[in-house]
Amino acid sequence: MDVKKETVRGFYDRLRRLYEERLPFNRVLGITVTSVTSDGGTMAFSMREDLIGNVFHRTLHGGVISSVLDAVGGLTASASLVPRAAGLSEEAVREMFAQVGTIDLRVDYLRPGRGERFTAGGRIMRSGRKVAVVRMEMHNEDNLLVAVGTGTYMVG
Amino acid sequence: MDVKKETVRGFYDRLRRLYEERLPFNRVLGITVTSVTSDGGTMAFSMREDLIGNVFHRTLHGGVISSVLDAVGGLTASASLVPRAAGLSEEAVREMFAQVGTIDLRVDYLRPGRGERFTAGGRIMRSGRKVAVVRMEMHNEDNLLVAVGTGTYMVG
Amino acid sequence: MDVKKETVRGFYDRLRRLYEERLPFNRVLGITVTSVTSDGGTMAFSMREDLIGNVFHRTLHGGVISSVLDAVGGLTASASLVPRAAGLSEEAVREMFAQVGTIDLRVDYLRPGRGERFTAGGRIMRSGRKVAVVRMEMHNEDNLLVAVGTGTYMVG
Amino acid sequence: MDVKKETVRGFYDRLRRLYEERLPFNRVLGITVTSVTSDGGTMAFSMREDLIGNVFHRTLHGGVISSVLDAVGGLTASASLVPRAAGLSEEAVREMFAQVGTIDLRVDYLRPGRGERFTAGGRIMRSGRKVAVVRMEMHNEDNLLVAVGTGTYMVG
Repeated sequence: MDVKKETVRGFYDRLRRLYEERLPFNRVLGITVTSVTSDGGTMAFSMREDLIGNVFHRTLHGGVISSVLDAVGGLTASASLVPRAAGLSEEAVREMFAQVGTIDLRVDYLRPGRGERFTAGGRIMRSGRKVAVVRMEMHNEDNLLVAVGTGTYMVG
Repeated sequence: MDVKKETVRGFYDRLRRLYEERLPFNRVLGITVTSVTSDGGTMAFSMREDLIGNVFHRTLHGGVISSVLDAVGGLTASASLVPRAAGLSEEAVREMFAQVGTIDLRVDYLRPGRGERFTAGGRIMRSGRKVAVVRMEMHNEDNLLVAVGTGTYMVG
Repeated sequence: MDVKKETVRGFYDRLRRLYEERLPFNRVLGITVTSVTSDGGTMAFSMREDLIGNVFHRTLHGGVISSVLDAVGGLTASASLVPRAAGLSEEAVREMFAQVGTIDLRVDYLRPGRGERFTAGGRIMRSGRKVAVVRMEMHNEDNLLVAVGTGTYMVG
Repeated sequence: MDVKKETVRGFYDRLRRLYEERLPFNRVLGITVTSVTSDGGTMAFSMREDLIGNVFHRTLHGGVISSVLDAVGGLTASASLVPRAAGLSEEAVREMFAQVGTIDLRVDYLRPGRGERFTAGGRIMRSGRKVAVVRMEMHNEDNLLVAVGTGTYMVG
């Protein structure tokens, strides 16, 4: 068995659990991590009554959209660190992931957040020693682009 | 009694109820509207277990911060329309407020969201016929600046 | 001959001349419009001594990068209006293009602006009646991504 | 004579010369540094034919505005490092200032850039070991607010 690959997969599993299970507000949003690799992460969540921001149009609250885009951006920035984790002590790895934080975020609301199931994905644009920049997108189940965003994350 | 002033206060009350009671996700966040005038709006909310984004540091989720900043920005943009509401029909007023929507949002996370009680306020920077720009700030109970943001809102 | 197509090409030519010849600061930057269609526009410019922002590293000034990204975003937003121009009077067309303006701009500086020849392109993300959102990218001659940006433009 | 104060003033003078004289594109823009302290910097420049972006309205090019806001933001971020410079070697100081760079920039164009003389100022919002966040503003000679911006700068 290839220990190194196993370990790398272990880091991604850990990130998945962190974003899905250990962040209380992500549970409020009902976020599921659908993939996470060094290329970035993807998430999904379902429309629910209490995620609504506009009662007339029954669309997602803008804050739900920005929250999920920030989460998938953070997941993507964290995943970009996995190659640096190989060989580090457990404590160093934990510290490395713990220090990932959003510096700033821009969200562009392109269409009303209408739908039953939404997916969000992130792509690394800059991967520096200290700072990562990620572009994010959110689609509904008809593959309509609901929102895009850009986040700058502290990574070191 | 000055009917016109009464009406204006009525519009602000309506906005307060809209943001506090009628937007399901604002209730999830526990937002209270603490003031709303033509100069802008202010909101407050309390730390709660399920608003946490970082279990180690017990700080607010970035999405909670962006959600509240967007909400107080939308409230401020809506409040800036009140002077235009005088003399309009009930239906026209409702439509005017209903079409307010976030075009884009930037959030700068300045300090970890640590505290028990947070306040957020908005200030109009541009008040055009079609588009408004608002700058927002969030403080904790020690008056530490946690985050600032800038939002562009459709208003006509 | 297909009159309608000719007219459409005429509008794109007009936009090319506007951005290349009629905006004094675009001439300072040495901008050439390399393509413009309803899908967006592309531009190119060459490194020059007076576009330098960092004398040690001899890299582009950040303001040159933001200026060109804003310009190609404005070109793209304008080009998205061409389908609406068909059948309008000369005066109405001129007014339509004249009112295009940047509401806000975000630029992410991903790599030092090193190179001899730079290209920039825009892609429409939102094309509304009043507001357009464009994502922009700038590469150097080695196809390295130097910067990305997002602009919100008034279009009606 | 208080050597330490002299040295601190020396650092500010050095930053003034750097931004005024040593960055070629700042000379193209005609930027003068009007003040620089640990609280931030201010700049001024005059309208000129070749800074125009809209020939009909004779207003500043959006790129001139974003360039100057980025410059005053960089000056402000650099000035915030001066207290750390005391006691460092000449080489360490040079390196400290040389590594200041814009990570990302948001500009909000609030009013057409009309006027003869423009001033811009920056204020530090976050001053970390690695990253600084600055809010910037630009006024014309009638004290009308033309644009605001927010920049994130690498500082360590």
